[in-house]
Amino acid sequence: MSSPSIYLAVIGVGGVGTCFLSQVSSLPARLRPTLIFLSRSSKQLYDTSYTPVSPSDLQASTSKLLSIPDELIKYLSSAPGKVILVDNTSSQDVANAYPSFLRKGISVVTPNKKAFSSSLQLWNDIFSAVDQANGQAMVYHESSVGAGLPVISTLKDLVATGDQVTRIEGVFSGTMSFLFNSFAPVDGSGKGKWSEIVKQAKEAGYTEPDPRDDLNGMDVARKLTILARLAGLKVQGPDSFPVQSLIPKELESASSSDEFMARLPEFDEQMESYKSQAAAQNKVVRYVGSVDVGKSEVKVGLEMVEKGSPIAGLKGSDNLICFYTKRYGANPLVIQGAGAGGEVTAMGVTADLIKVVERLG
Amino acid sequence: MSSPSIYLAVIGVGGVGTCFLSQVSSLPARLRPTLIFLSRSSKQLYDTSYTPVSPSDLQASTSKLLSIPDELIKYLSSAPGKVILVDNTSSQDVANAYPSFLRKGISVVTPNKKAFSSSLQLWNDIFSAVDQANGQAMVYHESSVGAGLPVISTLKDLVATGDQVTRIEGVFSGTMSFLFNSFAPVDGSGKGKWSEIVKQAKEAGYTEPDPRDDLNGMDVARKLTILARLAGLKVQGPDSFPVQSLIPKELESASSSDEFMARLPEFDEQMESYKSQAAAQNKVVRYVGSVDVGKSEVKVGLEMVEKGSPIAGLKGSDNLICFYTKRYGANPLVIQGAGAGGEVTAMGVTADLIKVVERLG
Repeated sequence: MSSPSIYLAVIGVGGVGTCFLSQVSSLPARLRPTLIFLSRSSKQLYDTSYTPVSPSDLQASTSKLLSIPDELIKYLSSAPGKVILVDNTSSQDVANAYPSFLRKGISVVTPNKKAFSSSLQLWNDIFSAVDQANGQAMVYHESSVGAGLPVISTLKDLVATGDQVTRIEGVFSGTMSFLFNSFAPVDGSGKGKWSEIVKQAKEAGYTEPDPRDDLNGMDVARKLTILARLAGLKVQGPDSFPVQSLIPKELESASSSDEFMARLPEFDEQMESYKSQAAAQNKVVRYVGSVDVGKSEVKVGLEMVEKGSPIAGLKGSDNLICFYTKRYGANPLVIQGAGAGGEVTAMGVTADLIKVVERLG
Repeated sequence: MSSPSIYLAVIGVGGVGTCFLSQVSSLPARLRPTLIFLSRSSKQLYDTSYTPVSPSDLQASTSKLLSIPDELIKYLSSAPGKVILVDNTSSQDVANAYPSFLRKGISVVTPNKKAFSSSLQLWNDIFSAVDQANGQAMVYHESSVGAGLPVISTLKDLVATGDQVTRIEGVFSGTMSFLFNSFAPVDGSGKGKWSEIVKQAKEAGYTEPDPRDDLNGMDVARKLTILARLAGLKVQGPDSFPVQSLIPKELESASSSDEFMARLPEFDEQMESYKSQAAAQNKVVRYVGSVDVGKSEVKVGLEMVEKGSPIAGLKGSDNLICFYTKRYGANPLVIQGAGAGGEVTAMGVTADLIKVVERLG
């Protein structure tokens, strides 16, 4: 076995990509594939004779840019060994090319949600390419939901061993978790008005640069799409089921993030009323996603949850995922912890990489 | 790839073993190895020409008994393909033979705690045999802690990707969980005296036939030994650190389970005093295991835990395992759910089997 003869190509050297490269550099030699391609938006680093490259040379690289996917696939599929592509971007274009990589025997490891939550056609193409590869090319994507938390692998194990997953429920966004844990904590206090909490979270870097990218719920909807599909539902995409956006209708036309933030206080009263409605029932308001497998129902939005429930008791920006299954009965299998951040997302990618190296080795 | 050429030997057809065989029979052909050996205490089923056998023929089998491990290893190592041994027993003798199986290229999948929690010598022998097998023979033991919950795999991923596990803490026994959740629930009620609760649990089948086998804490101590070793500590064995037994000193000499149960009410007052001490601090008493990696400290016993903590809020016979690590920071990675039972234990074994088949295939 082992990895001198397994090659690694990495697209994306942002927050996750940087942590990933650092984690890989510390792997023991037998688990560490040979890096032969590295790219970020406008730079690529590779050598046509497949000699190993070093991440520190990317900045100064003058390599001629290969088109992705066509020229990159050609380059990688002529490598003198098996190749693993790690896609650390969130690019739809790269995701669309996974079936082409897989059909050429190139395995894919990625936290990129778009590959698994866009059209059902792409999903089917990816997994039929995996089937046809007959164990010679595979796809792993643990960090596409809950970052490094063992969510995808657990769900796959439940399904593969014949358990019946009946319901999946939880808090799937670190940002939403943070916002609601601050806005409506179980002890009834609360750290301010909704718009103030969003502002603080933005300033602390807990939201996307444009907070609307969190508040529209699409990130959560993509994660639910992935989980629902793994549980067996033929979900067309993240816009094929009800997703409650926390962007008020009147602000949908805001032309900038700044305008949106400036006008958000107009809607504090609405959020305050959700909070009081919940309090009147001895509950708290949370942003929850759920899949009811039996009813084929997926939904994402605000829910009033019991104060004593695990979801209500979440802290910081933790995620929480409950799997209700036939074997586990009334009490779900629960996984909880940080679901975002460079290091923990990269950890899921690195752990997947190890599994692929072990299978190819 | 795949499994017509991968062979399966199974020792043990009790509660877990029966569920396991049923789960395996539902796997798709490419993941289902060919069964060539099946045994329980006094029966064995196999064919010297390696034709597949069927579990339903075990009862009527007249196969000459092979000695375990010597004759079994000889039989399996001559099979016309790779072999996976699944040990569904809790036998120390079978566990002691894992290094011999592994050195002959036979992979091992098992929920048997004894292999990984007895002498450090056995642990070292097992994993050096795995290293020497260079990917041709491997050992997987997810169900040795927390049954099918993803505990072992998560800890291994954390360590393999370079995270620093600083502390592991939780409730590792379904029986202890049930007893304390009934005896001292967060709402202060409680379903009776300690001895009554033990009696009810015994009658409902929630304890071992002899409840002392749960109350002595050794099952939890074995699980902590495994986790501590995976986190990097050289723990000599489950008797090398403090384990608080809930068998009162005066009852250690009880000659039978019946005598023990009959005299247990004499010690209700002592347990009641723990309960009130905890209540006075607005806490509840629970049976907790913990590993402090930095201090090299492992301990198992009663602790007073905050009413709002995840451990205090456990329900039924659920386990809960918290991993505190450098990457996860202040909030741990938490896994919770049923940690005992035939189906969920077998699920961990079957999921491991799939991983080994995928790696060998």
